Amino acid sequence: MQPCIITVAITGSVPRKKDTPAVPVTVAEQIESTHEAFEAGAVLAHIHVRDDGENSSSDPERFAAVQAGIEKHCPGMIVQFSTGARGRQLSERGGMLYLRPDMASLATGSVNFPTFVNENPPDFIRGLAQTMLDYEVKAECEIFDLAMLYNAADLVRDGLLASPPHVQFVLGVKNALPARREVLEFEVAQLKQILPEATWTAAGLGRHQLEVNHWALELGGHCRT
Amino acid sequence: MQPCIITVAITGSVPRKKDTPAVPVTVAEQIESTHEAFEAGAVLAHIHVRDDGENSSSDPERFAAVQAGIEKHCPGMIVQFSTGARGRQLSERGGMLYLRPDMASLATGSVNFPTFVNENPPDFIRGLAQTMLDYEVKAECEIFDLAMLYNAADLVRDGLLASPPHVQFVLGVKNALPARREVLEFEVAQLKQILPEATWTAAGLGRHQLEVNHWALELGGHCRT
Ligand SMILES: [Zn+2]
Ligand SMILES: [Zn+2]
Ligand SMILES: [Zn+2]
Ligand SMILES: [Zn+2]
Repeated sequence: MQPCIITVAITGSVPRKKDTPAVPVTVAEQIESTHEAFEAGAVLAHIHVRDDGENSSSDPERFAAVQAGIEKHCPGMIVQFSTGARGRQLSERGGMLYLRPDMASLATGSVNFPTFVNENPPDFIRGLAQTMLDYEVKAECEIFDLAMLYNAADLVRDGLLASPPHVQFVLGVKNALPARREVLEFEVAQLKQILPEATWTAAGLGRHQLEVNHWALELGGHCRT
Repeated sequence: MQPCIITVAITGSVPRKKDTPAVPVTVAEQIESTHEAFEAGAVLAHIHVRDDGENSSSDPERFAAVQAGIEKHCPGMIVQFSTGARGRQLSERGGMLYLRPDMASLATGSVNFPTFVNENPPDFIRGLAQTMLDYEVKAECEIFDLAMLYNAADLVRDGLLASPPHVQFVLGVKNALPARREVLEFEVAQLKQILPEATWTAAGLGRHQLEVNHWALELGGHCRT
């Protein structure tokens, strides 16, 4: 078994201060929370940023500030930028990749989320993958539904994802794949057939987090907190 | 094993006269082609209609004309209207359900298609399902990706799909689920767990059509031509 990579996603794209006063929203808060997680053993930080109204943002300046803070306070920590859809313009989602984070997320398909369509049109995905190659940013393919796994394999085949690829199976988002162990087992078995060289993690949303981490460890993947 | 239901989808949403001169596009052509299929044994007609420019349309008058022609020429044939996304406005896709066809298609999630996002937002799906209930139209849940199967089960749980539900597993659309036998086997096994009362069919697109029909027969489903 490979060593477990503990990931921290300090600020997601959903909670706001009014819902969860402890959620780190400003750049300073995000850096400090990431630092705490780093001292507790996290080695990878998954970064979303917010604008002054606490809305999801693609602002390169905010991404750059968080990146610089993590590099300063958390030496060696892997920085991963989110290119996720929620509340962000399609045209801006990859606009901060020139900052060359270590990694960036790449959803390789479209799927329903609780209240909206997580939209990633085919051409957009390919453009984002090419931009990551251009800036030598390693992609983490986010697999919210099964077809996205086969799409990731198509990207590898077409030279749009560096080898070995890395995928994350996300379970427990309402309207996307549920947190069912047999689903993860099937995904991992298919991955081993179509992308045997790939590394993988699994993430469970909300109350499914610990359960999915546990399955991932048993099935030989990395884990994420 | 249940008897095999032979379905005919005379006019899809893609081919045009310039690509495939034999494709039936006018109402008269569609009725005549359906009649031929009916005489050859098809018992269910899946209906898309086109406007004068051969574009996909939701025009209730065209649906009504095809429906009337099939009722007249093909007595007893099951008429299923498509509510599919390709080239149609979200707000109009269910606008012909007041015609009370026997069945209508209902994609229970969003997924990438070859060149665009097959968009079916969560609220839209629920609204369409409710309209089908109101007009006593039986839904055929179109499963283009795995999460759509669990979404269909949620609709049954919430009283938005009549029991027993009917699902169709669609394989071989580029960027959606590929035509892999283990994918269909997994879908059928999950269906039996979460919706044991459901009936199902499987459809393979293009060159996968015969292969997928064959798997469906072996796995106990209906088939579709
Ligand atoms: Zn600090
Ligand atoms: Zn994220
Ligand atoms: Zn005739
Ligand atoms: Zn159709």
